[in-house]
Amino acid sequence: MMSDVAIVGAGLMGTAMAWPLTDNGHHVRLVGTHLDGEIITSCLENHYHPRLRRRLPANVQPYYIDHIAEALDGVDVVVSGVNSLGVHWIGRTLSPFLKPGMKIIAVTKGLEATAEGDLRILPDVLADELPSALRDDVAIAAIGGPCIAGELAGRRQTCVYFASRRADILPGLRQMFKTPYYHIFLSTDVVGVEVCVALKNAYTLAVGLAAGMLERLGGPDEAGAVNYNPAAALFGAGAKEMARLVQLLGGNPNKVNSLPGVGDQYVTCAGGRTVRLGRLLGKGLTYAQARQEMAGETLESAFVIAQIARALPTMEERGLIAHDELPLLRLLCRLITENAPADVPFDNLFHDDI
Amino acid sequence: MMSDVAIVGAGLMGTAMAWPLTDNGHHVRLVGTHLDGEIITSCLENHYHPRLRRRLPANVQPYYIDHIAEALDGVDVVVSGVNSLGVHWIGRTLSPFLKPGMKIIAVTKGLEATAEGDLRILPDVLADELPSALRDDVAIAAIGGPCIAGELAGRRQTCVYFASRRADILPGLRQMFKTPYYHIFLSTDVVGVEVCVALKNAYTLAVGLAAGMLERLGGPDEAGAVNYNPAAALFGAGAKEMARLVQLLGGNPNKVNSLPGVGDQYVTCAGGRTVRLGRLLGKGLTYAQARQEMAGETLESAFVIAQIARALPTMEERGLIAHDELPLLRLLCRLITENAPADVPFDNLFHDDI
Repeated sequence: MMSDVAIVGAGLMGTAMAWPLTDNGHHVRLVGTHLDGEIITSCLENHYHPRLRRRLPANVQPYYIDHIAEALDGVDVVVSGVNSLGVHWIGRTLSPFLKPGMKIIAVTKGLEATAEGDLRILPDVLADELPSALRDDVAIAAIGGPCIAGELAGRRQTCVYFASRRADILPGLRQMFKTPYYHIFLSTDVVGVEVCVALKNAYTLAVGLAAGMLERLGGPDEAGAVNYNPAAALFGAGAKEMARLVQLLGGNPNKVNSLPGVGDQYVTCAGGRTVRLGRLLGKGLTYAQARQEMAGETLESAFVIAQIARALPTMEERGLIAHDELPLLRLLCRLITENAPADVPFDNLFHDDI
Repeated sequence: MMSDVAIVGAGLMGTAMAWPLTDNGHHVRLVGTHLDGEIITSCLENHYHPRLRRRLPANVQPYYIDHIAEALDGVDVVVSGVNSLGVHWIGRTLSPFLKPGMKIIAVTKGLEATAEGDLRILPDVLADELPSALRDDVAIAAIGGPCIAGELAGRRQTCVYFASRRADILPGLRQMFKTPYYHIFLSTDVVGVEVCVALKNAYTLAVGLAAGMLERLGGPDEAGAVNYNPAAALFGAGAKEMARLVQLLGGNPNKVNSLPGVGDQYVTCAGGRTVRLGRLLGKGLTYAQARQEMAGETLESAFVIAQIARALPTMEERGLIAHDELPLLRLLCRLITENAPADVPFDNLFHDDI
């Protein structure tokens, strides 16, 4: 059955969702946020997305944010394509147009600390922005797992999880999005999937440190040795700590040793802003200096680390974590919130078991 | 306390162990196997290791295999630096020279199937080659974790596990090898560490398939999309299956989501023969064709997969694994033992949990 689906947020990942949807015969209404004006102009004028560097599929209709009412009229499913800085905004923006039975599926990555020091997953943050009368009647799902937007739009083989506490909506969403190249697994472990989605950005920054440490050493030595050994230790330590955090927040730690955790971390380590920020910090720049060097770029990894840094002391006071746990995460917090140097505690990343 | 330590096997990894040892003041006797004659000649004439492309540390004395008796005289610790094809040989070769209280620590990666279809870890295979009178008196340990030999020799930050069923010998071995760049964690979970060490080669071959699949597609598309999404799905599926196998063979599956499993798999995926073999298979070559293209190279990943292929049917008959478990490993077995095509079962790599 063909439907009209709205995607709100015309960045890379939101827009890429148009490919599986239109390949399945659905009509997509692509709504840019206030930040996406130029993208929408290009989409309207040339049917071309300048950041994805692709022509849009035929069945995509672009909309400026001013026309969101028209774009959402009669749709059953809304894809939230905003990043973590837009999660409150999207909840408030969608609210006037939501009707019972509608579904929101979000690609957003992140965690948010409350004033009390609780870490919350973003689907819950989004839900809190919805009118209370609708909260039980509008179901929210989230997408996790390794998915580079440009590859999804290139119809590369991609595996992801669709997660929601509302098991009843998941099979229908899969039916709507799945294609021979987009493989969807379903989970009610929203916390497991979402904590992985958020933390892989934090721990990929850690892996990036190794490349910067190599630059600080002057690059490859005379025999060509680079710095994969420390990168791999940091990757492994990140996976281990991620599982601990998933467990702490009430998810299934097995999600880490699978697609949403290490699978996603693997692809994130392949490049991009997070690795670049890690490299600058590993090279010896403070976060303040690195941020200047990357002025104008949204650093979601730093954002999620800052949120965690707000929650960690409370979690420790409550006895949820011990003082010597999560040494790598604590380093990341010091890097981002205290401009501390990138002194990796290699001797503490793992433990004896004898 | 300074000691004399023998390293038998003058390949990359065995030889690299000379750096932490000599940095700690120990004297190293580096014994080449029959295959290492030219390496030893270079080491003797120029104190230069041609494969590591480095001058040896001062306190390394090279020996041809014919002089192994002299090399082992008076040593307390022997490093086995051979690969999986040499594990029976090293046991038989060392046997005449072993004395009660000696320790063997192995860098060898692999698993071996028995005629009954049991998969055995290589430290146990080595132990079986020792004279029965000595088996309780010569302790065996193994090294696992992400360690590129050239980086260890370049004194890059490296984290590894030393594993042995004999907990009493581990602290002494750590004392002997640990340096400010070589960080050693101890474990009595030999099965956990060794199964990770072996399987990361198998599953890295799987990750390599994605690069070959990209070549088969004609390379990056007009917008630059490559094939990280499938690589990441394969990486995640490998980690998940690896944990299942560790558990089946009696190890702690938490070793996977840590340094020896995903940490080691991460560094192995960065390049080398295993990735290259996977790429050729992903491109569409049969294993027989790929082996021709890589003639003369030791393909340890194919070797371990072939061993597993011998054991899987028996494990299934015994009810240890279900028919639909381990889909990626089964593909790897078909690739290597049946020259099957690389049709990745993406829809079966993970499962719903709702």
